[in-house]
Amino acid sequence: MSDQIFSYSGLLNFTEAVFRKIGCPAQDASTAAIALLSADLRGIDSHGVARLSGYVRLWEVKRVNAAPKIKVIHETPSTAVVDGDSGLGLVVAPFAMKTAIEKAKQAGTGWVSVQNSNHFGIAGHHAMMALEFDMIGMAMTNASALVAPTFSIDRMLGTNPICVAVPAGEEPAFVADLATTTAANGKLEILQRKKQKTPLGWIQDKNGNPSTDPHELKNGGALLPLGGDREHGSHKGYALGAVVDIFSALLSGANYAPWVPPFPAYVPIPSEQPGKGIGHFFGAMRIDAFRPAVEFKKHMDHWIRGFRNAKTKKGEDRVLIPGDPEREMQEKRSKEGIPLIEPVVKDLEQLSVKLGVPFI
Amino acid sequence: MSDQIFSYSGLLNFTEAVFRKIGCPAQDASTAAIALLSADLRGIDSHGVARLSGYVRLWEVKRVNAAPKIKVIHETPSTAVVDGDSGLGLVVAPFAMKTAIEKAKQAGTGWVSVQNSNHFGIAGHHAMMALEFDMIGMAMTNASALVAPTFSIDRMLGTNPICVAVPAGEEPAFVADLATTTAANGKLEILQRKKQKTPLGWIQDKNGNPSTDPHELKNGGALLPLGGDREHGSHKGYALGAVVDIFSALLSGANYAPWVPPFPAYVPIPSEQPGKGIGHFFGAMRIDAFRPAVEFKKHMDHWIRGFRNAKTKKGEDRVLIPGDPEREMQEKRSKEGIPLIEPVVKDLEQLSVKLGVPFI
Repeated sequence: MSDQIFSYSGLLNFTEAVFRKIGCPAQDASTAAIALLSADLRGIDSHGVARLSGYVRLWEVKRVNAAPKIKVIHETPSTAVVDGDSGLGLVVAPFAMKTAIEKAKQAGTGWVSVQNSNHFGIAGHHAMMALEFDMIGMAMTNASALVAPTFSIDRMLGTNPICVAVPAGEEPAFVADLATTTAANGKLEILQRKKQKTPLGWIQDKNGNPSTDPHELKNGGALLPLGGDREHGSHKGYALGAVVDIFSALLSGANYAPWVPPFPAYVPIPSEQPGKGIGHFFGAMRIDAFRPAVEFKKHMDHWIRGFRNAKTKKGEDRVLIPGDPEREMQEKRSKEGIPLIEPVVKDLEQLSVKLGVPFI
Repeated sequence: MSDQIFSYSGLLNFTEAVFRKIGCPAQDASTAAIALLSADLRGIDSHGVARLSGYVRLWEVKRVNAAPKIKVIHETPSTAVVDGDSGLGLVVAPFAMKTAIEKAKQAGTGWVSVQNSNHFGIAGHHAMMALEFDMIGMAMTNASALVAPTFSIDRMLGTNPICVAVPAGEEPAFVADLATTTAANGKLEILQRKKQKTPLGWIQDKNGNPSTDPHELKNGGALLPLGGDREHGSHKGYALGAVVDIFSALLSGANYAPWVPPFPAYVPIPSEQPGKGIGHFFGAMRIDAFRPAVEFKKHMDHWIRGFRNAKTKKGEDRVLIPGDPEREMQEKRSKEGIPLIEPVVKDLEQLSVKLGVPFI
């Protein structure tokens, strides 16, 4: 089963047309398509166009509002709370990140918590919006619960990613974009397709026993927080995932913990809903609110080169800077196109027929 | 070898007297002693009074200025950079955290990066200063390099802790205080004393091979980032430690990466010094800059109770909230006193003789 290669522009146009077809205003459709496809470009295939039909199904069951009135409902000089009006997270998140950037221009930093949103694609895309303004960008989001806290068998947290993007000078930007679990759900999907087992420390079964079955989530199992088990620091991964939940949802008034609505439209929403939709959190810090940007970036280059030149252990050819693999993938796929596996291609073709939007 | 028990007030008075003896103004000596002893109260024995003689040795070699002129050298409505003037981090950090809190009162949030400081004890003590103001507090610091990034054998980062303290209502505050490594250095010291091995995933030898020898750091080995190895997400722990370094030192103008000055006074300072002293980063976010504090705290209570009531796996009696173990230890030790191991007691007795400060 070989992958088919598609051009970025072809997939972008199709995605944009799909979003327009379900009622997104032109500008929103474009914003959402760019955000979604950034995942495919950066090699995070689980969060890209493979999810397009999932977003459409959320619209079909009226959990996504295609033409939301996104607005700031509370603010101070350096903070805002945004109500996403049930819009696509792919549209709500860039609105909120722009708000953070505008706040930072005035107050030095900007921090925006978001309620009433939906899944926003990859955190990195939004955090990196800050880079061109010589700002550090941050983005995080909660998600439906798949992760058991240390010592528990209940799923209480999403994979709750954190991204921090830091501008450099001559070197490419530092972009740390990480789920607060040992492995993100997308990695399980890859192993499922390859019919391979997971390493120990990624997942547990419904009784909390270590497992290597990538299908374990379907049987009541749970993903493990970064660290894996208590002896290896899983309480730290759990704490970080919890912080993401608190910043994204408790500060904004979104749903949190096991009450976050799931992405698959066929999975019922938890009957208790302590907030609205899912929550995100964004930050922007102007470098020159601390020190001159030129000076900072000179030191970032020095920092980055220090790590690139660190000695590797035997068998490894280089020490990576956070963001290296995704940036290199983006360079490659921008030129060579984006490979999609057969089930995703079929899914997009069906979507094309259903909506009457020509596929590429 | 049984521990001796000391009263908190006895150790506090001795510590304060030691700091006054080396020239700290009375107020600073009190601030520093309270910060240092908070580690012993909270059960983080490696960072408490056991380090008192280490701080004194740094003063002896003129790396600590006992009477610093700590000042804000740059600011915007929501940010500041603080020059610690080579003061004790135990004094510089509370100054910087107060600055963050004052900024947050005005601008909604406050973010302070610190240069030219020394070790600040435990991050939790400083972050928790925000709680009484109904703010979320954050504290992080870099430290001398003991940690190898993923794929490397060079020590490039400190154990770079992050603390996030979040107020709740009827429930105790949520306090996540974590080194960005699988295990903090203090845990190795405990195993060394007990002549036990470490679990795999904590440490590697000088060639990057897995090791279980808690003495491995003395032989050129390195601590491992949270995650342990690439397959278990060590690139995430590495990225988090890197973010702490960037926020603490690149934003402020402190030393970073392998160039951070070491805590032991007998270890030479790296010949390259790209900044001044060590760096910290503090944040304060006013809850009502996002939503009414009463409402937030009601939801935090709900969040906390949800996790406390999560099902445990067999053999575990409860699911912990970040901060539970340290708070329970603080309650216990406030009443029953603080146990110190014999080498620490001897060290304090010697310090007492050397400085002519009576020990308890």
